[in-house]
Amino acid sequence: MSDLPEQQVVEEPEAQTQVDIEQGDAFGFGDEHVNQVRDHLRSDNKEAIKGLFEDLHYADVADVVQQLKPDDRSNVLKIVGQELEPEVWSELDEDILEEVVDEIGADTVARAIVEMEDDDALAVIEELDEDDQKEVLEALPHGERSVILEGLSFPEDSAGRMMQRDLVTVPAFWSVGETLDYLRSDIDLPENFYEIFVVDPKQQPLGTVPLNQLLRNKRPVRVAKLMEEQLTTIPVETDQEEVAFIFRDRDLVSAPVVDANSRLLGVIHVDDVVDVIDEEHEEDIMRMGGVKQDEFYSSALDAAKSRVVWLVVNLGTAILASLVIGLFSSTIEQLVALAVLMPIVASMGGNAGTQTLTIAVRAIAMKELTPANTLRVVGKEVAVGGVNGVIFAVLVGICTWLWFGDTALAGVIAAAMVVNMVVAGLAGALIPVALDRFGADPAISSSVFLTTVTDVIGFFAFLGLAAIFLL
Amino acid sequence: MSDLPEQQVVEEPEAQTQVDIEQGDAFGFGDEHVNQVRDHLRSDNKEAIKGLFEDLHYADVADVVQQLKPDDRSNVLKIVGQELEPEVWSELDEDILEEVVDEIGADTVARAIVEMEDDDALAVIEELDEDDQKEVLEALPHGERSVILEGLSFPEDSAGRMMQRDLVTVPAFWSVGETLDYLRSDIDLPENFYEIFVVDPKQQPLGTVPLNQLLRNKRPVRVAKLMEEQLTTIPVETDQEEVAFIFRDRDLVSAPVVDANSRLLGVIHVDDVVDVIDEEHEEDIMRMGGVKQDEFYSSALDAAKSRVVWLVVNLGTAILASLVIGLFSSTIEQLVALAVLMPIVASMGGNAGTQTLTIAVRAIAMKELTPANTLRVVGKEVAVGGVNGVIFAVLVGICTWLWFGDTALAGVIAAAMVVNMVVAGLAGALIPVALDRFGADPAISSSVFLTTVTDVIGFFAFLGLAAIFLL
Repeated sequence: MSDLPEQQVVEEPEAQTQVDIEQGDAFGFGDEHVNQVRDHLRSDNKEAIKGLFEDLHYADVADVVQQLKPDDRSNVLKIVGQELEPEVWSELDEDILEEVVDEIGADTVARAIVEMEDDDALAVIEELDEDDQKEVLEALPHGERSVILEGLSFPEDSAGRMMQRDLVTVPAFWSVGETLDYLRSDIDLPENFYEIFVVDPKQQPLGTVPLNQLLRNKRPVRVAKLMEEQLTTIPVETDQEEVAFIFRDRDLVSAPVVDANSRLLGVIHVDDVVDVIDEEHEEDIMRMGGVKQDEFYSSALDAAKSRVVWLVVNLGTAILASLVIGLFSSTIEQLVALAVLMPIVASMGGNAGTQTLTIAVRAIAMKELTPANTLRVVGKEVAVGGVNGVIFAVLVGICTWLWFGDTALAGVIAAAMVVNMVVAGLAGALIPVALDRFGADPAISSSVFLTTVTDVIGFFAFLGLAAIFLL
Repeated sequence: MSDLPEQQVVEEPEAQTQVDIEQGDAFGFGDEHVNQVRDHLRSDNKEAIKGLFEDLHYADVADVVQQLKPDDRSNVLKIVGQELEPEVWSELDEDILEEVVDEIGADTVARAIVEMEDDDALAVIEELDEDDQKEVLEALPHGERSVILEGLSFPEDSAGRMMQRDLVTVPAFWSVGETLDYLRSDIDLPENFYEIFVVDPKQQPLGTVPLNQLLRNKRPVRVAKLMEEQLTTIPVETDQEEVAFIFRDRDLVSAPVVDANSRLLGVIHVDDVVDVIDEEHEEDIMRMGGVKQDEFYSSALDAAKSRVVWLVVNLGTAILASLVIGLFSSTIEQLVALAVLMPIVASMGGNAGTQTLTIAVRAIAMKELTPANTLRVVGKEVAVGGVNGVIFAVLVGICTWLWFGDTALAGVIAAAMVVNMVVAGLAGALIPVALDRFGADPAISSSVFLTTVTDVIGFFAFLGLAAIFLL
């Protein structure tokens, strides 16, 4: 370590509006680095590429590797692949990771994994396909392999996969002085730790001592006096989404992970939880958009394939809506204005329903929508639908009257609008609640059901009322 | 502190499938507590309510307060309002917070704020309406008030509002021993800290020393030898979304916040960032669903009002689509099957476009979609649209032929499907890129533009081709 500080200061923006742009360059790679690498490749300047990669933060290295075209990536990895920091691996997107592993070989990957933190190592291994996984595991030294295999024995996406297993434990009768002497002795300490755990002889956690308490108290003080005893312990099989929820709900900075006998197995820190929160966030957004996973780096054909299922489902609901329209084809034949106007009713219902759905799905995820208040929430959403239904009935009624000069038609579309928006509020609240009750994820499937309902009811109400009152 | 540990163990599930349910009860309040409070209210058992609230974690207290009906809430606050832990306040939803402040008075709120961490105190103050804010500020002791006012002087949602200002700084020439003596002396230390900062005489940060380094090294070692010098410092006016991005990109656990002269002002820890990530996540989800903010606790009328704007925008696009259909009303009059089938083309385009949009919006947020690869991404999405367009053209063509026995009609809808799905891929990728380039948030406005395009093109292609080839 040099004595001169080597700071990495985010460039100070001259004006506030510049913050985003300037930082966008300072962080999250610049196109600039990608272009530099490309230029160096073209002039076959291997040393320049090595130099550039050495200077970059590992997150930026990962970004550059991802941004390159496959051929360029392959060439760059031939030059620097053996020397990449291990942290680069856990930053790579799944699609790119597999490509890179095939490129540089299982041995190199295994060497990187040995140096990683437990949860990052597991995350990389998990993302490999079966063959690569096997090869990498075989290339690992025995000790490391059994640690990884034990980690893999915990359910996917469980606390066991998130935790660090390297931690510092002391018995309750020790003093601050004894603890300091122990830490300063020649033992194998974790590379970094934020608290020490006080355990009983059965390895069950009694409490944690934040490091600042060890520093501010004098040597004779007993650690048992300093420890925080209100532990929120997490069973090792707890799902990661639940772990994230607990951390947020309790504002935790860290939590011990225990086995079925309450023995301490590891610790999860809030920074490990950030990745899970991001992952869940991405999953939510992707599911709501009808995409299975982020396929930004997949090929067009793979992307097309993975999106087909959702489109087939939607084709089904679209055909269902068409069948409803088909019932009224003779009505439409007599009054073609109905065909012109009918999408308005369906679309407004869909949008109003999506608003309700968004609030309800979020409230279920946050455990704010519960059996005790479901009735109240549904009632409120129906009321919202009613209020906005009337507002848009008036608006659409006036538009229709101005356009077609037909008062009866205006009345029919206004009535259909109220009906469909009330139904949208009802369905928008009830569908996610029902899906949740039956154990399905409300985020993924709610919107198909909802638009099916609002399309079918929208067309049926409008065309049906028209058939009765206009012909 | 008692010597007996008072653990709060998540109930150990018997079978894995039970995890969710059981923990759902253990965390995130149970309806049970709400019901207990209600029963105690009815039997006017004030002591029982006080006892219950004393036993609960502050997050659960906040949940119970939110779950109660307004009248019950008001009565409960009369009983326990003065004794709530300060942390309860920062857990409350904005709508409930204002109600509660009016109920228990500015003095009580001020007393709670004095005890909070800087960022929580600011978060509570921010959420109050202007009058309440004024009252609470006036009720604060002078010193605390100026700290809060200084915090409020930083832009909303900036690093200045997130940071803790209480930190431990030492000069670079100190040894571990001197630092320990300093920490053990009778100085006013922060309640909790995770690292100490090494600063130069101008208060500019030179590096941080993780506490475990102070503990594992002997007294004569100089702190300058132990400090991590690769600091990622954050200018105080940086937007919180950018702060969160930096933390995730760099896997930071903490980062110093500096003013325009690079002087150390405070520190942000990853646990403060979790709240921001959640906030941004909620904002994304809400915006994509066409809702301004989470209005789970708003009245029906307020909710209806806040949703009107989005619905008006959508009414505009729906009418635009209707106008396109109107152009072809004579075509529809001659072949009513067109009216029956036309929503299929529009709806499939909308769904395919939303898939592309989801990938693109996410990639922009993650800074993976950049000027350098825009063309490649757009090209890929058009290809995806083409592939799936052909697949669904065949499917829909067959369905149409089976339904109406009309080969020409089947051909027309198949052609329109290909056109609309290619356009959907193009628009789904280009619209968010364009919005981002012009400084708008792609998450909020993309979907209106997209569905406008897919509806208009869908109807136009289908009805237009029909007018040319079928009549």
